[in-house]
Amino acid sequence: MKQRVGQYLMDAVHAAGVDKIFGVPGDFNLAFLDDIISHEHVEWIGNTNELNASYAADGYSRINGLGALVTTFGVGELSAVNGIAGSYAERVPVIAITGAPTRAIESAGKYVHHSLGEGKFDDYRKMFEPITTAQGYITPNNATTEIPRLIQEAINERRPVHIHLPIDVAMTEIDVTSTFQPKQSTEQDISSYIKMIEDKLNAAKQPVIIAGHEINSFGLHSELERFVNQTNIPVAQLSLGKGAFNEENEHYLGIFDGSIAEENVKNYVNHSDAILNIGAKLTDSATAGFSYEFDIDDVVMLNHNYFKMNETISNNIALPNLLKGLMNISYKNTSEFPSYVREENNDYILDDQPLTQATYFKMMQEFIQLDDILIADQGTSFFGAYDLSLYKDNTFIGQPLWGSIGYTLPATLGTQIAAPNRRNILLIGDGSLQLTVQSLSTMVRQQLKPVIFVINNDGYTVERLIHGMKEPYNDIHMWDYKALPAVFGGDNVAVHDVNTSHELKDAFENINANNDRMHFVEVKMAVEDAPTKLSDIAKAFASQNK
Amino acid sequence: MKQRVGQYLMDAVHAAGVDKIFGVPGDFNLAFLDDIISHEHVEWIGNTNELNASYAADGYSRINGLGALVTTFGVGELSAVNGIAGSYAERVPVIAITGAPTRAIESAGKYVHHSLGEGKFDDYRKMFEPITTAQGYITPNNATTEIPRLIQEAINERRPVHIHLPIDVAMTEIDVTSTFQPKQSTEQDISSYIKMIEDKLNAAKQPVIIAGHEINSFGLHSELERFVNQTNIPVAQLSLGKGAFNEENEHYLGIFDGSIAEENVKNYVNHSDAILNIGAKLTDSATAGFSYEFDIDDVVMLNHNYFKMNETISNNIALPNLLKGLMNISYKNTSEFPSYVREENNDYILDDQPLTQATYFKMMQEFIQLDDILIADQGTSFFGAYDLSLYKDNTFIGQPLWGSIGYTLPATLGTQIAAPNRRNILLIGDGSLQLTVQSLSTMVRQQLKPVIFVINNDGYTVERLIHGMKEPYNDIHMWDYKALPAVFGGDNVAVHDVNTSHELKDAFENINANNDRMHFVEVKMAVEDAPTKLSDIAKAFASQNK
Repeated sequence: MKQRVGQYLMDAVHAAGVDKIFGVPGDFNLAFLDDIISHEHVEWIGNTNELNASYAADGYSRINGLGALVTTFGVGELSAVNGIAGSYAERVPVIAITGAPTRAIESAGKYVHHSLGEGKFDDYRKMFEPITTAQGYITPNNATTEIPRLIQEAINERRPVHIHLPIDVAMTEIDVTSTFQPKQSTEQDISSYIKMIEDKLNAAKQPVIIAGHEINSFGLHSELERFVNQTNIPVAQLSLGKGAFNEENEHYLGIFDGSIAEENVKNYVNHSDAILNIGAKLTDSATAGFSYEFDIDDVVMLNHNYFKMNETISNNIALPNLLKGLMNISYKNTSEFPSYVREENNDYILDDQPLTQATYFKMMQEFIQLDDILIADQGTSFFGAYDLSLYKDNTFIGQPLWGSIGYTLPATLGTQIAAPNRRNILLIGDGSLQLTVQSLSTMVRQQLKPVIFVINNDGYTVERLIHGMKEPYNDIHMWDYKALPAVFGGDNVAVHDVNTSHELKDAFENINANNDRMHFVEVKMAVEDAPTKLSDIAKAFASQNK
Repeated sequence: MKQRVGQYLMDAVHAAGVDKIFGVPGDFNLAFLDDIISHEHVEWIGNTNELNASYAADGYSRINGLGALVTTFGVGELSAVNGIAGSYAERVPVIAITGAPTRAIESAGKYVHHSLGEGKFDDYRKMFEPITTAQGYITPNNATTEIPRLIQEAINERRPVHIHLPIDVAMTEIDVTSTFQPKQSTEQDISSYIKMIEDKLNAAKQPVIIAGHEINSFGLHSELERFVNQTNIPVAQLSLGKGAFNEENEHYLGIFDGSIAEENVKNYVNHSDAILNIGAKLTDSATAGFSYEFDIDDVVMLNHNYFKMNETISNNIALPNLLKGLMNISYKNTSEFPSYVREENNDYILDDQPLTQATYFKMMQEFIQLDDILIADQGTSFFGAYDLSLYKDNTFIGQPLWGSIGYTLPATLGTQIAAPNRRNILLIGDGSLQLTVQSLSTMVRQQLKPVIFVINNDGYTVERLIHGMKEPYNDIHMWDYKALPAVFGGDNVAVHDVNTSHELKDAFENINANNDRMHFVEVKMAVEDAPTKLSDIAKAFASQNK
């Protein structure tokens, strides 16, 4: 079969499970965009800028399992590097495709626009090396090998890859004998490693699992839960990867966030004699500045391509194989552990006083429905939201390792497109919203119906708590937030103004009664108010900066 | 004298001529921001996001001669790389400072937020290497040598540099014996090169100078004009670097943009037997796709650190020294050349018909006053504006080599802050505005008074003309542009709605009569209408993508 390389690439991307492509046009990708918009099974989602597009592709991928981004050479791809780096850090697979000048232009070293004007064309590709798991320069000769390799690498590693696609290559016809089909991870004999874990568990009195974000990346929720149900080992999870474990399961302990965890979780985990870290990463933000009391060297590390137990280290065991191996463990925990009690959080008073962060999150707890997607930006929103109790079918999305404020608004564009029939609730603050606000216009254009809560508390509160509570650099300019949907053409968006718990209750009721439209809620709260978890973590961050 | 490294750095940046610092706070730079806001002579300008901050620092630098940007590690600095790469390509010096984790965190390889979570801390620094002219990791021991070296390199090369500043280093006290003082470029004996040029000129019948952007970068306008007045050699300039030569000078020929130049300019330049390329770069966008008729190998290249004449090449002659050397040339041109006639452009009709691009730019010609700064975004705006006639004291800012749409709104924030008493006129389109719109809020907060014209023609017209005139990927979502200033708190901004030449005239009159406030003009024009120059260049771009 004859196909243009661009068509072959789109077929391969679609075969890997992607049906929405995020990006921004530019003259070095336009002809390739023709092959996207004419593709039977994929849809082009144009974005307002490339950073927003990369965040949207990441959000889409977190729900869909894989995402794709198309930008133009230089100006486009470099605007997206922060988003791609975030996907890399948090293991979200995104196929980042750059439409580039022709091979003829490149080999002649011409001074074309979007180049640095010195005849070199490999600088940007190199800049993607540290933040992608594989990179490739597509030619007509290598297209049917490189494109499968790169997409497969994104799937294998759950990390972004970079595809450099000269525009003449995209338009070149090649012979295609088969379309790409993604492969499952190959089996590995890891019985000796599994035996080591089994022995450790059988010698332990107080075993525990710490679960984290790689479970979400690799979609291993049911495997993990089966292992837990089989062995009775209790599970704590990190804020980095909340949602890795079903919080309704009887073996769920709660969130472990170091010194600020609930007493019973903290005691159980810190004094455990067999900690299995499954797909988790004990970062500063997840552990209140590394404030765990166990010896990190005693932890059994079961990460993707990183197994470590005592002196034994392996760098090539895929996480899905580890989970498969764990099923063979013969062990039954008999220790008592403090099982998790779902917060009722109804000890707040409905009144007309200024709304507090504490009441806001207690009420939010009641607002969450069975299969909502909850997205929380890396400020007061995240640090309040990660403490909420979730139902089995909720999905929670935050970015506490990469921590790029503004990420969640475009990410919600992506999650809502990936899950059009689920309710997407975005919790974001004013400072974060300002970074990426134009994504709201893309949501309006796509007729999406997320529920967006914007905390208006006049500044970067997360920064204030770390350093400079009253310093001018943590101030932001006041906007008329409620006017934003209309400016972006969203005349149908329901806008709510919330200053008190009464008004928040009213807004919730209105939202629940009108699920046929987008809701945009401005929630005013005091400048220095914050969730307790954030105040505590901020102190840890301040002290690690000394 | 004892000083914190942060204080020493700010003293050095100020001594180099910078008094406004653009950036976004983040916890790895907060303590350093204290040394900025407490500095007697510099002011912190907080931005809505880092890309916008980098564009603003670039705009400030183009007027001021040097700019500075402060971001945080990872999420911040990587959001700014597109802006910094643009400064590199177009030779705009910006000191890009990253506040980073402490040396203790780095040497322990901790998994901190904003890192990729793998214990490595040098990836981002490496990503800055291709797009900055020098990079440095500051320590208490090297601060008083590295900081001067890096700032001096930015000045010498008129390009950005990257400063990695661990936050503990910023707060460390060091002994300072002298404050940094920037040096002028050192003298070089280049008489043999100058003699070669002199011989070539004396043998020539039709000499010409092509002047470009490096004249602006190095501020060599008066040197160039003196050389021209002394030798009578006519000067064409490129759109890349418009403003390099005084268009009121009798030796000015006009814009040379390859095959689409005015007949007399094109003929003179293409048939010249001695072309001196002074600080210019013959890029695709400046020459309508390299459509010059002379042999590029016959051109005498006088660029910064790139001298080439026939087989003689030197890579270490500073452009200021080249200009100084040219003064010694003994030569007087006696050829006749077509001197430039300033466009009157008054052959338009005031009516109530839909406004056309042609009329828009003819009227804009009349609107420009003696020392206005004119900033034009890389779409219809730039390709219409570079053909306007300027007065000696106008400044023109575009970005035709890097060509990142959306650049000019934040850049105007920077230019207006650098030149508070000059009128800044921004010409931008709807698609471009959408990328970086939140910068308008920073302009409002800073109480700036630029005059902003936004062409609302419903999409990426520059892309439509290259490829996909009616394709959906070139559509953008319609906004209520006129509502933007109020949303961003700009209740005092005068907003104008222009659909016809009559209304444009009225807007001009209102603007001229009310220079005490910002003006925001929405100019509606037809989707497919464009300046002739853009239509022609778009054809060249389309054909070079094949």
